[in-house]
Order: sequence, then C-alpha cells, then structure tokens
Amino acid sequence: MLRSTVRKPLQLVSRARLSTASWTAARRAAPLQVGRVWWPKVQEYSTKIQPKLTAESYPDVHRFSGFKKLAEDDLSFFKSILSDSEILQAKADEDLALFNEDWMRKYKGQSQLVLRPKSVSQVSQILKYCNEQKLAVVPQGGNTGLVGGSVPVFDEIVLSLTQLNKIRDFDPVSGILKCDAGVILENADSFLAEHGYIFPMDLGAKGSCHVGGIVATNAGGLRLLRYGSLHGTVLGLEVVLPNGEVLDSMNALRKDNTGYDLKQMFIGSEGTIGVITGVSILTPPRPKAFNVSFLGVESYEAVQKTFVQAKQELSEILSAFEFMDLNSQRLTKEHLKDVPHPLEEEYPFYILIETSGSNKEHDDVKLETFLEKAMEDGTVLDGVVAQDETELRNLWQWREMIPESSQAGGGVYKYDVSLPLKDLYSLVEAANAKLTEKGLLSVEDASKPVISAIGYGHVGDGNLHLNVAVREYSKDVEKALEPFVYEHVSSKNGSISAEHGLGFQKKNYIGYSKNDQEIKMIKQLKNLYDPNAILNPYKYV
Amino acid sequence: MLRSTVRKPLQLVSRARLSTASWTAARRAAPLQVGRVWWPKVQEYSTKIQPKLTAESYPDVHRFSGFKKLAEDDLSFFKSILSDSEILQAKADEDLALFNEDWMRKYKGQSQLVLRPKSVSQVSQILKYCNEQKLAVVPQGGNTGLVGGSVPVFDEIVLSLTQLNKIRDFDPVSGILKCDAGVILENADSFLAEHGYIFPMDLGAKGSCHVGGIVATNAGGLRLLRYGSLHGTVLGLEVVLPNGEVLDSMNALRKDNTGYDLKQMFIGSEGTIGVITGVSILTPPRPKAFNVSFLGVESYEAVQKTFVQAKQELSEILSAFEFMDLNSQRLTKEHLKDVPHPLEEEYPFYILIETSGSNKEHDDVKLETFLEKAMEDGTVLDGVVAQDETELRNLWQWREMIPESSQAGGGVYKYDVSLPLKDLYSLVEAANAKLTEKGLLSVEDASKPVISAIGYGHVGDGNLHLNVAVREYSKDVEKALEPFVYEHVSSKNGSISAEHGLGFQKKNYIGYSKNDQEIKMIKQLKNLYDPNAILNPYKYV
Repeated sequence: MLRSTVRKPLQLVSRARLSTASWTAARRAAPLQVGRVWWPKVQEYSTKIQPKLTAESYPDVHRFSGFKKLAEDDLSFFKSILSDSEILQAKADEDLALFNEDWMRKYKGQSQLVLRPKSVSQVSQILKYCNEQKLAVVPQGGNTGLVGGSVPVFDEIVLSLTQLNKIRDFDPVSGILKCDAGVILENADSFLAEHGYIFPMDLGAKGSCHVGGIVATNAGGLRLLRYGSLHGTVLGLEVVLPNGEVLDSMNALRKDNTGYDLKQMFIGSEGTIGVITGVSILTPPRPKAFNVSFLGVESYEAVQKTFVQAKQELSEILSAFEFMDLNSQRLTKEHLKDVPHPLEEEYPFYILIETSGSNKEHDDVKLETFLEKAMEDGTVLDGVVAQDETELRNLWQWREMIPESSQAGGGVYKYDVSLPLKDLYSLVEAANAKLTEKGLLSVEDASKPVISAIGYGHVGDGNLHLNVAVREYSKDVEKALEPFVYEHVSSKNGSISAEHGLGFQKKNYIGYSKNDQEIKMIKQLKNLYDPNAILNPYKYV
Repeated sequence: MLRSTVRKPLQLVSRARLSTASWTAARRAAPLQVGRVWWPKVQEYSTKIQPKLTAESYPDVHRFSGFKKLAEDDLSFFKSILSDSEILQAKADEDLALFNEDWMRKYKGQSQLVLRPKSVSQVSQILKYCNEQKLAVVPQGGNTGLVGGSVPVFDEIVLSLTQLNKIRDFDPVSGILKCDAGVILENADSFLAEHGYIFPMDLGAKGSCHVGGIVATNAGGLRLLRYGSLHGTVLGLEVVLPNGEVLDSMNALRKDNTGYDLKQMFIGSEGTIGVITGVSILTPPRPKAFNVSFLGVESYEAVQKTFVQAKQELSEILSAFEFMDLNSQRLTKEHLKDVPHPLEEEYPFYILIETSGSNKEHDDVKLETFLEKAMEDGTVLDGVVAQDETELRNLWQWREMIPESSQAGGGVYKYDVSLPLKDLYSLVEAANAKLTEKGLLSVEDASKPVISAIGYGHVGDGNLHLNVAVREYSKDVEKALEPFVYEHVSSKNGSISAEHGLGFQKKNYIGYSKNDQEIKMIKQLKNLYDPNAILNPYKYV
C-alpha cells in the first residue's frame, strides 16, 4: 500500500495570522475547542452490528452464584432512598440498552435496574446496602469506555453517576477545580475556559465522558505530553467504598505529604474498589496561542526523527504529537466523503503537531524554525499549518475521526498499547500480516470479515492505537488477534493497555503486562477494599 | 521590622547576553547548576548544639517490647550475606553518629549496627530475616530529612542504601532514566546533563540526598511548578517489602493502565511499608536557556500579585517562583558576611523568579515584558536580572542559603506547611507574635532562646517554610510552637507537611491534616504490608 512520493515544498502559503482582536472575539463567542468532539454521543451512534449478550458471546464466563438476584425488597429499599427519576427499571419494551451496551456494541449486559443518585449520601447508602445484600454493582460514567468495563456482564445493578454533575468550586488564583464525578469533561473545560484555564487532558469522547470516569480509568488522551498524567494533576478525590464508607480526600493543596497518598489507588481502578464521586484537580492557564500543523512523511523512521526534532525545537510549547498511517486516513476519507484531505497527495505516514503557549509570535517562530529544518533535511515531505481556528479544527478532525471511521464499515477491534517508541508501528505491520495470512482481510472483498488494520496514536507517550476495522465481529478474527497482539506487545516489553484499561476485554491478559508479584498485590488490594467483590465483577483482575 | 522603601528604577542595566558559543562552552565545562548546592554534606556540618538522645528528649516514647534485641546470631547471619565493608558496628569510640543523628541534630538514635548492602537481593534477605526475627529496621538514604524520619529512635538497625548507587539505564529518545535508589540526586542530574536532559526536581540537599530518598519522601523541591510532582514523573519502582518479597515494577512506559498503580503507595511512604531499591523516572529535555530575576516588593499582597502576573506572562517557561521575607535575608547576610546582597536597599519581601525554556531570546522578551509591567504598576519596587551563569548562581544562593543561615546561630525549628495562597504568610506573623508574647524571642538579646521566626518558600505550590532560628533547643520554645503551628495550619485548611513528610516529628499531628477515615485507611495499609511493624517504627502513623 505504501507508495513513493515526490518531494515538494511545504505549503506554508500566506500565513495569515489572526489579529488579537478577532482571536479574542472568536474566543469569547465560543471557547477554543482544540481537539473538537466528533465522537458521537452514545444515544446517537448506530452501526450495522446488533450486539449479542456478553453471556452468550463468552459462555465460559459464569454468573457468580454468591450474588443475590434482585428482588422486590431490594427495589423497595432503593425506592425508599431515591426518587422516581433516580430509578430506571427494565420494562417489556425497554431493555435499558443505553446502560447495558458499550460504545463499540461488543458487549451487552442484562441489568434490570439503573440507579441514578443525585447525592454522595445516596451513593453511600446504595453501596452499603448492596454490600450487605451481596448485590453486584457496575459504576457507570459516560459509558464511553472501550474495554467493556462500564457495562454489566450479567444482571449487575448499574450505578450511573450522570446526575451527580455539579461544579463544586473553582479558585481562579491557584487554578484548582473541584467538581462532582458526573460532570461531562467538555462542560468542565468550557467552564474553565470562561476563567482562562484549561482542563489538563482532552480526548475524543469529551462530549460524553465524565470527569470521574476519566479518573477512574486514568485516561491519557491528547495532552498528556504537555500536562502529564492524572496521577500528577489530580489533587484530591472523594470515593465511596464498597461498604458505604466515604473517603473524603478532596484536597485542594498542591502539596501534602502526610500519609500514603490514598487517592492514587483509585486513579485507574476502573470502579473495582470504590466509586469516585468527587474530583479536585489542578488546571493550568489556558494557552493564549494554538498552532496546528499536519505533515506527510515517508516512513515510520521519519515519524520518530520528526518527534526528536520537535522535542528539541518546540520543547515547552509542544502539546500534541500524533501520528496516523495511510490506511487510517483512507478510511477517514471514505467516511468524511466530500471533505478534502489536508494534503493533496498520499503519504505512508502523517503527523499532527499542536503547540500551545502564551505568545503567538514566539510560537510561530519556533514552529516555523522547526518545520524549515525538518523540510530542509528531507524528513518532512509535505505539510500545512492552520491559519485560523476553523482550519485548526479541520486538521484535528483527520486525527479525531479515525475511531468513528474505523467503525463505519461495521465494527472495530480496538487495541490500545504502549510500546517502546522504536517498536511502536511493528504491531500494525504484524497484525496486517497475520490477518492476511489467515485469509481474513481484504479492503475490497466484502466476503472477508476484516477491512484493514490501521495504526495511529500518541507518539509522545509511546502509545499506539491499533484498530482492526471489520465488516462484522467474528470469533475467527478474535482468535487471530488474541493473544497474538498481547504476545507481540509483551515480547517488546510493552503494556497491553496504555490508557483504555483492562475492563472485561483484557481481564485475562494482565499477565502479559504484570508479573506475579504485582498481580498478587493487586488482588490483595481488591480483597482489602471489596471483600465481597460486589464492585464491577468479572473484570479487571 | 518592616520599613517603607523608596521606589526606584529596576536595575536592568546593560543586559549582556551570553553568546551561544560561550554558553555552550560553559555548559560543556560544567553542566548548568541552577539551584546550586550550598547544603553542607552531613559529614561537614557542625552546630553549637550536641544532640540529646531521642529517647531522653521524648521520655513518653517507649521501645516496643515485641522487637528483638540485636544478638550474636543476628550478626552471624548478616556476616554470612554481607562483606565486611557492608557492615558497620558501633565501637567504644564510635557511636555511628553519622547514621544515628539527623541533619538538624534534633534527634539521635542508638543503633549499634548499620548495614550497607550492594544488591537488591541482599536487601531482600536482610528484610526477610529481620521480619522473621522481629528486628526493627530504619531505611536510610542520604539522611537529609528534616522530620527525624531517617534516623533510629532506639536500637533499630540502619539499612543504608548508600552503596546501591548505580545508574542502570538511560534512553536518550524517551528521556527515561532507571537507577538504583542510592544514587545521589546531583550525580543523577549531572549524568542527565551530559545527555541533554534534566532531573525533574531539584532541592538544596541535592549533593547528599538520594534519588530513592526523594521518592520515599515525595520531595517537592524547587521545580515542582514546572515539572509537577513525583507521582506524575516516576514511571516505575523496585521495592523490597518487609517480608523480603521484591515488587519489580520498574516500568519504562509512559502509559500503563493495567491494574492499580502499586508504585504510587510507596511514593511518600517514608520507608514504612517497603524499601525502595530502584527508580524509573521520566526526565524532560534540559532547558537551553535560564533566566533568574531577584525582586524587592512592599508587602505579601504584592508577592501574590506578582505571582498571578508571572503565571500570565511567563506561563510555560516559569520554572520557579520563590519568596523570602526580610528577616530571612538578614540572617543570610549575617551568615554570608562579605557577600553583597543583590539589592542595595532592604524590602519587606523578596522574590526570586526563574524561567527556563528552549529559546533564550523569546524567554528574555517574556521576562522583560513581565518585569516592565510589574514595575510600571508599582508591584515590583526594585530588582536585578542575572547576566551570566555566575550571577545566576549568586542570586539563587540568597534563597538556598536560608536553611543553613537559620541554623548558624545555634539550631532551627523547621516547619514545612501548605496553606491556601492568601493565608501563606499569616503563619510567620502569628509565630513571631506568639514567641514575642511568651518572651522567648529577641534578635539582639542573647539570653532569649529564639533569634527570629522567618518565612520563605515556593509560592507556586502554596508551600511555606517557617524556620524558627534558635540559639538553643528548648522545651519552652517547642511548647510555644506545637501544637500552635499545626492548629493555625489546620484552621486554614492547610497541610502540616507540604514536602518534608511526617517522620518522627509530626507523627502525632497527622490528625490536623487527615480525617479519621483517611487515618484508618493509612493504618490499614501499614498493617497489610508490614504486619510486624518492623519498618521505621515510632514514626509516620
């Protein structure tokens, strides 16, 4: 699929800078939405695939017989502490699909009850009761997870945080935000924009995902390169433990060295040892200037070389370095139909670079210097720089529409892995070779289940997204990919989950990323906090 | 003590920039040592104070009778796994003072045995044996701690990490460093400098303190503002648990979402649940340009206003924002004797600002713009900007020499607290008032125990260092200060330990910063990992 390209001058044409006035006006009208949301809301998406029940797809997984089945007396209890609008029950013509199915439509639970409390005290009472009664519970945020971690497997009660959605406090001097777990990420960021601050992470699903959900899954997203991980930016948490106890650790101090940092355990715990109800997070000043450049390069080696150059030249203003392969762009072109691609010709690899800083002129100079050098030495073959906010959004969509485009042909198997930088793309090549060898892949032949395996991701974090776009989900494809993908990652000392987590999908594969001692200690903590194992069962470990 | 000052033009005279050539030459000759080390090595310091045994100073603290007393068979075991140079025994004329006494000479233990293993396997064997035999152990790094956490209280065995001091691996593309816990911070940073990278934190004691020690105490230091906390930058740890099991979690991936992030619990655990033997940490590219400016302002309000302005104007290049009060500078002047102070006249408060970035010209413009604005509106009354590396070091010393200067008159009571920014300085005022009221303080009268209570610290992190400079340690002073200081901090919702930790000094005061649920969960973890409580007893919780 790779083809050679003709070297041509970089399209740095008529670089019309936004005047301060128009820039400010634009910002006032709508806060700058870098990394725009094209991620469809759960309610809106549809694919050709109707999900099967997880229980049918995975007959080896059995409902734990120690769990109580929901009974009338349980409902009576919930009705005694929750109002009608806080309780959703399955009816004959309504199977609570929105709460039982995941975003990829790969998993489908059979929950008959969704609880949507509006207060921490209600969450506490619910968990205390469920723990005593041994009723299994799945905490659920925006349900945008990609490993089946946020939907039930059998009849677990869904504890939805959707209605716990208030901003609690914001200090414009320190930049510390305190909010409920159910605040939608985009809403938190829009609120911060009004005060000149920015949420220190961003991801495609921002229009649906919850602040509590991204903390519970330790999401990485698009700006980790600039602002670091949530383990560094989250200052405090409020967590309801399985027994109903509330850990109120809503610290608003940047430094506090008194005792073990308990909150850290809940960051990335995927709802298995506690339900996050409140988050305190340090937010940085919103950058005054953004630049985005979209480049075409010859090889994966050129991607790496460009990254090292970008770190050197752009240093403190580099806020995103994303790469995409040719097939990811072809799928996206097909999906976006009439929208012209930023680059006229095709290249084996594409790079999106974002800078954000406090001085537009300085950032422009740094970016220009970098691009000139990268062009001069032949690393970058073609490229464009966004001239205004609209162009900036347009460039981002060629990265952000990839997940939806991968799924548009039917469905998608998604793998989110960490690998040493030099080995990052090897997995995509290996997956394509494997699927071709098994006779499962064809871009044209609609009788084959797989359309293509594509790769893209956050080079700065050593994080690859391998998406296998399929016409239909099939056991053959799954067998070809697993444990093959995990074995490949493990052989390169990578992680089988860079940011999506373990959930249901990767539960059995943790051994590829963690050693026995680690797994033992992880299980020890699970037993310590959730001895009845009522929280998010059949997943994680 | 505060006196009015005359407004005068900022000393931005003949700003001679270093040429690239001389700058590069200077860097080659000696890696840029911003934040130079004036912290005396433990072996070199001396004060007028001879420390009393902790057991005598704190008669309420009793040796735990469940601990075994060191016997011949124990020594035989240690001799069977360690060489002669790895074992230090107390002799008649040598009481192992370097290992029994802390840097402040406030605490003195009575250990008769120091073990200095050279391998992780030896550490594991030592702990396994001690756990089985119920021999208490104090892990010790560079012994630069300030809360008595790194020295024995009674006869605990000292487990010194000094000889576990190798750099294990460095990847110049990703910037990930792996090293033994006993590597001295300055050595790690010098090593990184050779590769164009920088250790993401810095502190006064860098010439003595260990990488493992700063992780075990979750040190904050001088550059937290720029690079964030160790919870974000540490990627992996190797930890020997009390039972001798080794948690090998030396991850070199920037992202890994598979299971609870176990290493986080050991960051800031002060050697109470495991001994850190290896550290994997993400290091950023070493900035190419540093600027330092030293300013005089009228009031603490002006300090805050300058901070907000600096965040706005300097944004991504702001790497340190330190404030110091007048008395801290007077003490330092006295100690440094003939060295001229950067500012001719005295001001109630001083500020040191450091910027670090990738483009000297851009940084100069940003700093100049910021200083002009701050001068124009009268916030900053006087100031100087370092013109070369020597000046830069000279300016830093007026911040970094404060700890030593506070101690030069005899001793010092150190409090390291977090407070909301607006309340930060209130504690220093309150402490001075209290000590004066009790008739304990006089700058001139040598019959009073206290010389002065001074304040300085990291404004960017809401972190105040309150140093009470004394002529001698006295129970009266201690009683006047404690729990008064902790009550004041608690009343403002601060933390009684921002970065120094709990150690021995603050063990009994954790309740001022943590609620019952938190303390319960902290104790639960201690019991989980160290059921025999052999590690660093009498401290932390």
